[in-house]
Amino acid sequence: MVQLGLVGLGKMGFNMRERLRAAGHEVVGYDRNPEVTDTGSLEELVSALDAPRIVWVMVPSGEPTRQIVAEFSNLLSEGDLLIDGGNSRFTDDKINAELLASKGVGYLDVGVSGGVWGKDNGYGLMAGGSDADIAKAMPIFDALRPEGPREEGFSHAGPVGAGHYAKMVHNGIEYGLMQAYAEGFELLEASDIVANVPEVIKGWQRGTVVRSWLLELLVHALDEDPELDDLEGYVEDSGEGRWTLEEAINNAVPAPVISAALFARFASRQQQSSAMRAVAALRHQFGGHAVKKAGE
Amino acid sequence: MVQLGLVGLGKMGFNMRERLRAAGHEVVGYDRNPEVTDTGSLEELVSALDAPRIVWVMVPSGEPTRQIVAEFSNLLSEGDLLIDGGNSRFTDDKINAELLASKGVGYLDVGVSGGVWGKDNGYGLMAGGSDADIAKAMPIFDALRPEGPREEGFSHAGPVGAGHYAKMVHNGIEYGLMQAYAEGFELLEASDIVANVPEVIKGWQRGTVVRSWLLELLVHALDEDPELDDLEGYVEDSGEGRWTLEEAINNAVPAPVISAALFARFASRQQQSSAMRAVAALRHQFGGHAVKKAGE
Amino acid sequence: MVQLGLVGLGKMGFNMRERLRAAGHEVVGYDRNPEVTDTGSLEELVSALDAPRIVWVMVPSGEPTRQIVAEFSNLLSEGDLLIDGGNSRFTDDKINAELLASKGVGYLDVGVSGGVWGKDNGYGLMAGGSDADIAKAMPIFDALRPEGPREEGFSHAGPVGAGHYAKMVHNGIEYGLMQAYAEGFELLEASDIVANVPEVIKGWQRGTVVRSWLLELLVHALDEDPELDDLEGYVEDSGEGRWTLEEAINNAVPAPVISAALFARFASRQQQSSAMRAVAALRHQFGGHAVKKAGE
Amino acid sequence: MVQLGLVGLGKMGFNMRERLRAAGHEVVGYDRNPEVTDTGSLEELVSALDAPRIVWVMVPSGEPTRQIVAEFSNLLSEGDLLIDGGNSRFTDDKINAELLASKGVGYLDVGVSGGVWGKDNGYGLMAGGSDADIAKAMPIFDALRPEGPREEGFSHAGPVGAGHYAKMVHNGIEYGLMQAYAEGFELLEASDIVANVPEVIKGWQRGTVVRSWLLELLVHALDEDPELDDLEGYVEDSGEGRWTLEEAINNAVPAPVISAALFARFASRQQQSSAMRAVAALRHQFGGHAVKKAGE
Repeated sequence: MVQLGLVGLGKMGFNMRERLRAAGHEVVGYDRNPEVTDTGSLEELVSALDAPRIVWVMVPSGEPTRQIVAEFSNLLSEGDLLIDGGNSRFTDDKINAELLASKGVGYLDVGVSGGVWGKDNGYGLMAGGSDADIAKAMPIFDALRPEGPREEGFSHAGPVGAGHYAKMVHNGIEYGLMQAYAEGFELLEASDIVANVPEVIKGWQRGTVVRSWLLELLVHALDEDPELDDLEGYVEDSGEGRWTLEEAINNAVPAPVISAALFARFASRQQQSSAMRAVAALRHQFGGHAVKKAGE
Repeated sequence: MVQLGLVGLGKMGFNMRERLRAAGHEVVGYDRNPEVTDTGSLEELVSALDAPRIVWVMVPSGEPTRQIVAEFSNLLSEGDLLIDGGNSRFTDDKINAELLASKGVGYLDVGVSGGVWGKDNGYGLMAGGSDADIAKAMPIFDALRPEGPREEGFSHAGPVGAGHYAKMVHNGIEYGLMQAYAEGFELLEASDIVANVPEVIKGWQRGTVVRSWLLELLVHALDEDPELDDLEGYVEDSGEGRWTLEEAINNAVPAPVISAALFARFASRQQQSSAMRAVAALRHQFGGHAVKKAGE
Repeated sequence: MVQLGLVGLGKMGFNMRERLRAAGHEVVGYDRNPEVTDTGSLEELVSALDAPRIVWVMVPSGEPTRQIVAEFSNLLSEGDLLIDGGNSRFTDDKINAELLASKGVGYLDVGVSGGVWGKDNGYGLMAGGSDADIAKAMPIFDALRPEGPREEGFSHAGPVGAGHYAKMVHNGIEYGLMQAYAEGFELLEASDIVANVPEVIKGWQRGTVVRSWLLELLVHALDEDPELDDLEGYVEDSGEGRWTLEEAINNAVPAPVISAALFARFASRQQQSSAMRAVAALRHQFGGHAVKKAGE
Repeated sequence: MVQLGLVGLGKMGFNMRERLRAAGHEVVGYDRNPEVTDTGSLEELVSALDAPRIVWVMVPSGEPTRQIVAEFSNLLSEGDLLIDGGNSRFTDDKINAELLASKGVGYLDVGVSGGVWGKDNGYGLMAGGSDADIAKAMPIFDALRPEGPREEGFSHAGPVGAGHYAKMVHNGIEYGLMQAYAEGFELLEASDIVANVPEVIKGWQRGTVVRSWLLELLVHALDEDPELDDLEGYVEDSGEGRWTLEEAINNAVPAPVISAALFARFASRQQQSSAMRAVAALRHQFGGHAVKKAGE
């Protein structure tokens, strides 16, 4: 059994603490929310751990993560290890690792997949960093990952940055998968021949080529709301899809599906599209085609 | 100077009659609208023309055109020539041609481009049919097409059907061109660095690689409404884009730009997207991500 | 236990016969291949079955299926039932059903998913037709579908045609899913930070959002050939993806992901792209940009 | 008449010097190539100009431009003006402007469009910077831009960076336009009904909705090589398309057409696609579908 400091006890971190404790590990958690935190500050968290320490950071990517890492660079000691398990951009990892290395502190970046289901199912993990640091954290990884062969729910993707890179690509793929199911769903809904769309989708769960965990989630959603009309077709994106596309651009990799999925989300959030106003205006200009005036 | 029967005096046909008459040709027009028609019926129109007759049909594609052709197959005589100048699907042409051929009547299919500007600028023409029939109608084509070298505003694309095929592809390209400008317009609008979007677009009219007639029309539109916010971003499609994509499928030709332009129009007309509801539902299922409830 | 005539004993039909017999059903198979057939002709097959008969047709879609259905319309008797389990276009089903109905023979269309794995795993089934005909064939469906709750591997999608429609959309989704994984794979391969691509993908099998049966198949493929470089990136398409896109067009449903996946297959089979030659030519014309001459 | 230092006498800069001199301006050019340069060094170029100087930099974007600007920041004097007319990324402009401002030197960024045709036709110009600096350079702009109203070939797009931003979007649009024509061309070639593709395209030059300068260039190319089969369908990209897509991502602007055009170029340069290998492998895994082995 190992000891772990865990910073960030939101939807993900909270559940991870539960899963780790259920596996018999000692977790000292910190969160700004006094209702869930175990300690009053990062200093207290560090004091509560025996050296060499392992600290897992699970806070929003970007500035929040960078700031926590900077604080820890002043609190941790030679031989300690910090793991960024958030959805940081892989380009942040080298910076974080170098900052911590200057204090003799190790660094791992770990992509964590599985959402709210991870507490019970386990989390898929992709890690970046040195073999030695990976080995130190392996008891933690083994507790967080799903049961079954380790290599089916955990990978050591490469050096620092590779874990977040793999998670970024994972999420880009996820965008594409979701959009593929979504287009199929819309077409089934639009058709007047398929009488019972939710039953068709439910029936895809076993034996078919398209069976997947996302499909099961779609079945759950349709069980609750068979036409999904309690929902707006308004979809956020949280960064990894954009980064995946930027990396595709940087590497000259065609990514028509991932980009289409991302753009569909962008479009879903627009009340008005300037682009489509321009197309409407052009049609009107050359053909005298009717247009919809605003407010009609 | 030649004599022409012209059926269909809407936006296109009406202007074509003007242009043909201005060129000195005799045009006998027929339209259901008594305010614009020259004759009371197709029978009267046929009677008013000297054999061998040339009749130009300029009515909506599909059923209306097929019906007019069927009526003319009973009214025209051996040696006469019927021209379908509407936006018919090329697959209709062979059927029309065979029906008329059984009565000894010739057939040409002609794609006509240029919209409401054609009256003054002339119309771009793409014709399908036999050399002999093309030759009979050439004075008409020469009057309708823009000034300048014939081959820059008129083509004999091939046998019956080729004219509408060429026009179909023309319109598919047109969809792509419009969407390309539209995306650029939206990005300029979204940027906070370009201070004056209409001026930038106006300044592209001379010397640049993107200069075109469509660009000039966009400049006109922006002159009238600099942010295009009098318009809804709601865009119809009239068939040729769909047919182009279907032909791309039939010929295994990748058409990512033309399809993207068509789908953007489809999406522009949706108040709610079932697909994006499905994506929102999936995100909610796996991540507990917030969703917008309908009506929020 | 029921009795079934099964026509077409190729990769799919052969395995289905095995699975049905293993479940205790009596199967009389027919195939042109004398090594696998149980009977010498369709007539013999019909004679070998007790009325009311059930015949399952599992031959290539299009002309072959239409022809077999036409032959059976002369061989089967009132009260018999024919099931088309091939990948027919849904528009064929109404024609088949009406032809057979004129002889008092029932008709079901059934989409069958699962490929070569179906023999052991069971096949996902989507059926179209009347409740009464579905009920007659249910013992067959129960033997073919995977174990577990019936509704997770079988659906009655709607009236005649709905089964093949659902299968068509299933395959359209499948195209999108495969392309999403494929783009992610290519990006991981292109990156110089991810050291071990097959391990990353293997590690996605448990706990992650992207886990699926297709992902497991990708793992199998990478186990055999870690960089997939024994293969050409040349991908056929077998019709359903095209039909899905055509239905999307007919229903004005945006399908950017499914179309992108289809076009990627088209492009994969081109040695030379006329389109990209045109782009190269245009760049050369305006910019004097270097081009590759053919054969360089 | 004004005096201008011009650095970079490649395809673009060489022609611009010609055009400026033809308009009566004094141009002192510098290039590393001794055959075209007027001076031996940047120092000599600066010495040859009377203060306040105007220097136009026309070298490859990125490091080469940044380096020249850095050198000029040590050579120019308060009141001088430097213009970057290359295809720099707009994000470089603020950095350049601040460096020069620290020495009292003004800065303009100017997007220049028109390619090798600009010498005779004039160049389309998009400028970013202060009104005062724009006014100083206006005689240069007036000489470089096409004849006709200034606002149709020149725009002051906004503050520093806006010129290159507008040019970037211009090029993104250009990618989309080219791909639209290219897809249409390929479909016409693939069709067996259109007998003469080059004639059809030639006939689109007058009167049609798709007429444009790019279309005229396509006609030139087809005049030289009617099936474009002297060329490989291999297309480079030079940065602006990528940047446009990245800006679309940053601004959550859907850009399906521009991205499709960019990805088509990426794909055109791949001998083998890892993505399509993965799709082929997946089809083989689930369906036993035939694959092409490498080298077949």
